[in-house]
Amino acid sequence: MKIKVNRKELVKHINIVQKAISNRTTKQILEGILLIAEDNILTLIASDEKISIKSKLSTIVNKSGKCVVNARLFGEIIRRLQDDVIDITVNQNNMNINAKRSDFNIQVQNEEEFPNLPRMDDGLNFEIDSEDLKDAVRKTTFAVSIDETRINFTGVFMDVNPEEINFVAIDGFRMALKSIKTKTETKTSVIIPARALNELVKIIEEEEKIIKVDLSFNQIKFTLDNAELYSTLIPGEFFKYEGLIRKNHTTVASTNIFELQNALERASLLAKEERANLVKLDVHDSDILITSNSEIGSVKENVESQVDGEGLKIAFNSKYLLEGIKNMTSETLKLNFTDSVNPCIITEEEDPDYIYLVLPVRLAN
Amino acid sequence: MKIKVNRKELVKHINIVQKAISNRTTKQILEGILLIAEDNILTLIASDEKISIKSKLSTIVNKSGKCVVNARLFGEIIRRLQDDVIDITVNQNNMNINAKRSDFNIQVQNEEEFPNLPRMDDGLNFEIDSEDLKDAVRKTTFAVSIDETRINFTGVFMDVNPEEINFVAIDGFRMALKSIKTKTETKTSVIIPARALNELVKIIEEEEKIIKVDLSFNQIKFTLDNAELYSTLIPGEFFKYEGLIRKNHTTVASTNIFELQNALERASLLAKEERANLVKLDVHDSDILITSNSEIGSVKENVESQVDGEGLKIAFNSKYLLEGIKNMTSETLKLNFTDSVNPCIITEEEDPDYIYLVLPVRLAN
Repeated sequence: MKIKVNRKELVKHINIVQKAISNRTTKQILEGILLIAEDNILTLIASDEKISIKSKLSTIVNKSGKCVVNARLFGEIIRRLQDDVIDITVNQNNMNINAKRSDFNIQVQNEEEFPNLPRMDDGLNFEIDSEDLKDAVRKTTFAVSIDETRINFTGVFMDVNPEEINFVAIDGFRMALKSIKTKTETKTSVIIPARALNELVKIIEEEEKIIKVDLSFNQIKFTLDNAELYSTLIPGEFFKYEGLIRKNHTTVASTNIFELQNALERASLLAKEERANLVKLDVHDSDILITSNSEIGSVKENVESQVDGEGLKIAFNSKYLLEGIKNMTSETLKLNFTDSVNPCIITEEEDPDYIYLVLPVRLAN
Repeated sequence: MKIKVNRKELVKHINIVQKAISNRTTKQILEGILLIAEDNILTLIASDEKISIKSKLSTIVNKSGKCVVNARLFGEIIRRLQDDVIDITVNQNNMNINAKRSDFNIQVQNEEEFPNLPRMDDGLNFEIDSEDLKDAVRKTTFAVSIDETRINFTGVFMDVNPEEINFVAIDGFRMALKSIKTKTETKTSVIIPARALNELVKIIEEEEKIIKVDLSFNQIKFTLDNAELYSTLIPGEFFKYEGLIRKNHTTVASTNIFELQNALERASLLAKEERANLVKLDVHDSDILITSNSEIGSVKENVESQVDGEGLKIAFNSKYLLEGIKNMTSETLKLNFTDSVNPCIITEEEDPDYIYLVLPVRLAN
């Protein structure tokens, strides 16, 4: 292999594929990036066997070839060089990186051991607007379960219907549901590991418009302008989430997100020291009174609110309320209640296609 | 105690005294800030028994009093409130913090257990320009020893003479020496814990001009406009550092700091994996050739340089070179050598009062 490459472009593409690499891999070959130089294109591929990312850039290829180079070392060298253009030459197990005043020789590995990219035979595919996808990922992945014994709930359920795609995360204490309007002409559903989605949104560029999604029986592939991300799917069933979406509420409190978030964060200063980050909400008239007590002290917070319906007292783990609210982008949200034992459904004013549902904590008294 | 206080001012002063608090203290009282409200002044004091910081702000004191409040909790509450002015009332063991929509009650401790500030009887004192002091601390503390069995070298030696003060740090591999011109009319020397100096520079404000220094037999006190920092001194002798300051050199290489730093950092990418971060310098003609070899590869870096005197080959732990260079502020530095076994003395063009000395690594061949 012999190439002449724009250094900043190469750094960008190393950063993209490096997101697939796991720090905890025990296989040396998976600490590497597979480089393929051919037809004036340099292709980079990295994988942790669950997630694989492939990225391409145009470059001058004087001699085609393949090799696997340690991602961390290669990345640090290329990032720290100061030149605009660098020459990379691979001969057998040696890579020479040459710049004006710098000359590196590092070992590379043979590409044969590197895992192949998954084959996507089944041909189910559709398109998603990139902004919609980023929004759906941001508003759901934080709510997946971290309990590896309930593996189905560590992923986001993507429920694809002809007119809309629902992204759903459930961890037993809350649910986040974001709908995206599309025309997929497809009906299917899969569970996508949260990590794959989180890495995906990091490599979606500003200019990116449409993301193509391909599904096979156990793989998903997202195609961007200059990169592809492959992920294994989580097999198994998901929760029948539609049953949780209650339409009738007895109490609805509208409030400023920023004020509510600040008040909950202050109340949590005392709550977090004690059992389950407990905060109590007393919803009445034109206020939500938030209280929290622990051995170290007590706090009362008053949040101005427009309350329609009956007054209500209800308790929550403040962490679950806060995580949902923090990911909302509107100025105003609605807390929708029926009573003190059923879930609170939180909706935000400027996104009617998002709901965040939190189970209350039942109090003994 | 009953006070009405500007919240942002209070946050600023909490941040100042909190720097004295150790995360590792086992005494509950030392997790606290001693508050003293009297004569429309609120005084805050925190201590880890080695370092104590006292800070003052003007405020409305309706009822004077004292208490000790947990620094972390008090700090987080005050920082997270949104009001301009808050009311703080202490009754026995309860502190009430009241703002427009927030009301906290937290426990406080009795002030009697809180350690007294050290007494500074002996009366040796002088003044230092605050910019000079900050510069001296930044250019020396990084070079102290982290070896607690050589306790004298974990501090910075402050060698006070009538015309100048020398700040010296030595760890057995390198020495950093910064001179400040002053008129102290005093001759003395003390060893100051590096942590005290590092915390001190964090609380020196932009407007601060002159810092007053008081010395007693085992304490040092720095007086700023609105704060005082006390530190215990490290007892014992220091190294006779003057003997290390060589004036005659056989080889002097002048080079751009930025280029040298970048080249060393790149060379260290391979070096750091192996024995002692070893880099070899070949100083000759108009270049410094830096090389490094390890199992994973090799690197050559060429740094343009004006070399006066004989050519020379010498090896270093790149970490020691880099730490010194990174703390220099000039564009150009000089590497002053005599041979491959004696220290390299690094001086920077725009600060003739600073020298950084590094011992070379002796190579077997």
